[in-house]
Amino acid sequence: MHYQFARRLDAAPESFLDRLFAVSRDPDIISFAGGLPMTALIDVAGIRDAAAAVFADEGESALQYTTTDGYLPLREYIAARYRTRLGLPATAAEIRITNGSQQCLDLIAKCFVDPGTVVGMERPGYLGAVEAFSYYEPRFRTVPVTAEGPDMAAFSALCHEEKPAFFYGIPNFQNPSGTSYSDAARRACADICRETETIFYEDDAFGELAFDGQPRQPVKKYAPECGVMSGSFSKTVSPGMRIGWVYAPEPVIKTFDCVRQAADLHPNALAQAIIHRYLTTHDYEGHLARVRRVYAANCRQMCDLLDDLLPDITHTTPAGGMFMLATMPAGRDSMALFDACLKERVAVLPGVPFYAEGGGHDTFRLNFSTATEEEITVGMGRLAQAYRHCG
Amino acid sequence: MHYQFARRLDAAPESFLDRLFAVSRDPDIISFAGGLPMTALIDVAGIRDAAAAVFADEGESALQYTTTDGYLPLREYIAARYRTRLGLPATAAEIRITNGSQQCLDLIAKCFVDPGTVVGMERPGYLGAVEAFSYYEPRFRTVPVTAEGPDMAAFSALCHEEKPAFFYGIPNFQNPSGTSYSDAARRACADICRETETIFYEDDAFGELAFDGQPRQPVKKYAPECGVMSGSFSKTVSPGMRIGWVYAPEPVIKTFDCVRQAADLHPNALAQAIIHRYLTTHDYEGHLARVRRVYAANCRQMCDLLDDLLPDITHTTPAGGMFMLATMPAGRDSMALFDACLKERVAVLPGVPFYAEGGGHDTFRLNFSTATEEEITVGMGRLAQAYRHCG
Repeated sequence: MHYQFARRLDAAPESFLDRLFAVSRDPDIISFAGGLPMTALIDVAGIRDAAAAVFADEGESALQYTTTDGYLPLREYIAARYRTRLGLPATAAEIRITNGSQQCLDLIAKCFVDPGTVVGMERPGYLGAVEAFSYYEPRFRTVPVTAEGPDMAAFSALCHEEKPAFFYGIPNFQNPSGTSYSDAARRACADICRETETIFYEDDAFGELAFDGQPRQPVKKYAPECGVMSGSFSKTVSPGMRIGWVYAPEPVIKTFDCVRQAADLHPNALAQAIIHRYLTTHDYEGHLARVRRVYAANCRQMCDLLDDLLPDITHTTPAGGMFMLATMPAGRDSMALFDACLKERVAVLPGVPFYAEGGGHDTFRLNFSTATEEEITVGMGRLAQAYRHCG
Repeated sequence: MHYQFARRLDAAPESFLDRLFAVSRDPDIISFAGGLPMTALIDVAGIRDAAAAVFADEGESALQYTTTDGYLPLREYIAARYRTRLGLPATAAEIRITNGSQQCLDLIAKCFVDPGTVVGMERPGYLGAVEAFSYYEPRFRTVPVTAEGPDMAAFSALCHEEKPAFFYGIPNFQNPSGTSYSDAARRACADICRETETIFYEDDAFGELAFDGQPRQPVKKYAPECGVMSGSFSKTVSPGMRIGWVYAPEPVIKTFDCVRQAADLHPNALAQAIIHRYLTTHDYEGHLARVRRVYAANCRQMCDLLDDLLPDITHTTPAGGMFMLATMPAGRDSMALFDACLKERVAVLPGVPFYAEGGGHDTFRLNFSTATEEEITVGMGRLAQAYRHCG
């Protein structure tokens, strides 16, 4: 039997994740390669109690088919949080619940990308977005991102000359680099997007994880009609329940609904109700503060160990999120480092898959949200060993 | 702001579902138009207990990220049920968990359909499949399906001459018609698929709902390498938890994994664990027997009332599932009937969206799994009134 797969399969990048999964299953390996929130910080008891309350009060509706748009009380909660936390004029009508924010990437690409359509990305940019978009066969055009935000000349040229379907960015504590846009960069992006009628897709998976707890203004605030934002409870409540959302102007939401209904009908009714119950009956702010404290301490520890043990490697210094990016001296190769690391029983993520137009061989991503303090100490020691061996 | 949507949006059929949702929200309307399992038959207490056990034993892992392939114990359960119930040599390695079986339709099309690729469908065929596939811009080619199965000459001509990426069918208690393939038709389909290397996509959402409780042999049994099957717990346990699966040969599964990971990373970990716990700690066979009994009685009642009240309408006589198809005398239009029905506070589903190549104006679908005995009596009386008025 010969299976004739679709042409789009050829466009998909080779996934590095199989190797990563193998790594993450080996308990002897300390992994800085993944992107899991710390298991000990998941409020299992709180979510259990929320689930019990849902079964008691609304079990039948939480187990029956529901609507494509998502659980209205949860959409209202998210809209209210946008209003109070960020001053955005959000309403539930502009918000849709998705299977994590990863599903937003797939569906927004399905709404906007035909084969050959230009999609703008950050360089480096989130590899999960590269993978999601690739199946729609776009032409990726990337803009370098520094500690202040995108290179504005390059961003402007892209929007003016290449008319991308959208630009995809993570202004807060980016994956993989951990850097954030300055407020000036956000305003400049908004101006250019308005001028060129470019959609700015703002993936805000990490905004709630600012170490200082302070919100940053989204690009969408300065260009509402251009702004498509997505968010997620995966980093703050539970990834296993797969609840994220998209917040977008009405014409986008209407199209999104059609595409989403055809894709899998509607979001998980039970998980939506449980998350909403948890958010509204537990101390979510206290929980977030605890998560931020732990991740901030882990990040500081990792930065300090990098400086001490590996002084010729430069790295970003995140103010939130879960990741930092390290850059080795020119000529060094992160795939060689990856292999050397496995011998020392530590894992890092080579940067290459984050560069949609190629490059990044001298970079690797470090996650600081999964490992404990002790694991970070031991793991960074192993990384230093590995680095010496693969020189 | 002008939003430039992708070309594929033009290919999508106009959805009838918005009007349907409005109907389903009006408590004064008795709806035979939807496709919900009966709410009273959802074992809320049993699922609640299963959830409590999951939180107690494996709460952390049920709330953390998990693998794309799905919860291994659930995949093993499904494989074992295929082995014991249908004699299929299924293993967990050939099974993947999805967000209901609707997601399988989207992802299989993503794996196999480029713009212009031929996709074979039944006529009439499941409208949710038409919608899912449409976004990949196929050319639909349909084969008439009667009470015995597909028109074999037409099926053979399609497979030999048009080389479809796959043929999509529902051999058991089809949506919308409620008819099933004879065993001879299944064998003949399998022979033709093997001969022509055509994938037979066998949507088995209703196989467990045979009124006599007896399994029918799938086409995949007679052509394993050609067979891609999907199943769902939506009709048997709970639709709100969105747990379905696909069972396919290894090369298809490998491609499916890549596509699925990019789409939304992995299935809901909590819902998978709860469903598995429910299946293995509750009397699932007893539950299924109860569901079958109620649906069989509802179906009989509806058929009898159709015969009594609307003798010039012909209808299928399902042996399982949730739907039957009614055909009016030539010249009658089901959209006019739909409007007349709403005035009488009853809803049926016009057949047109089930005909991917057009036609079906004289048909409508009736659901018998949602309404109670009394609602069926009252609702069929209203339908008879409406039919007289729109003549």
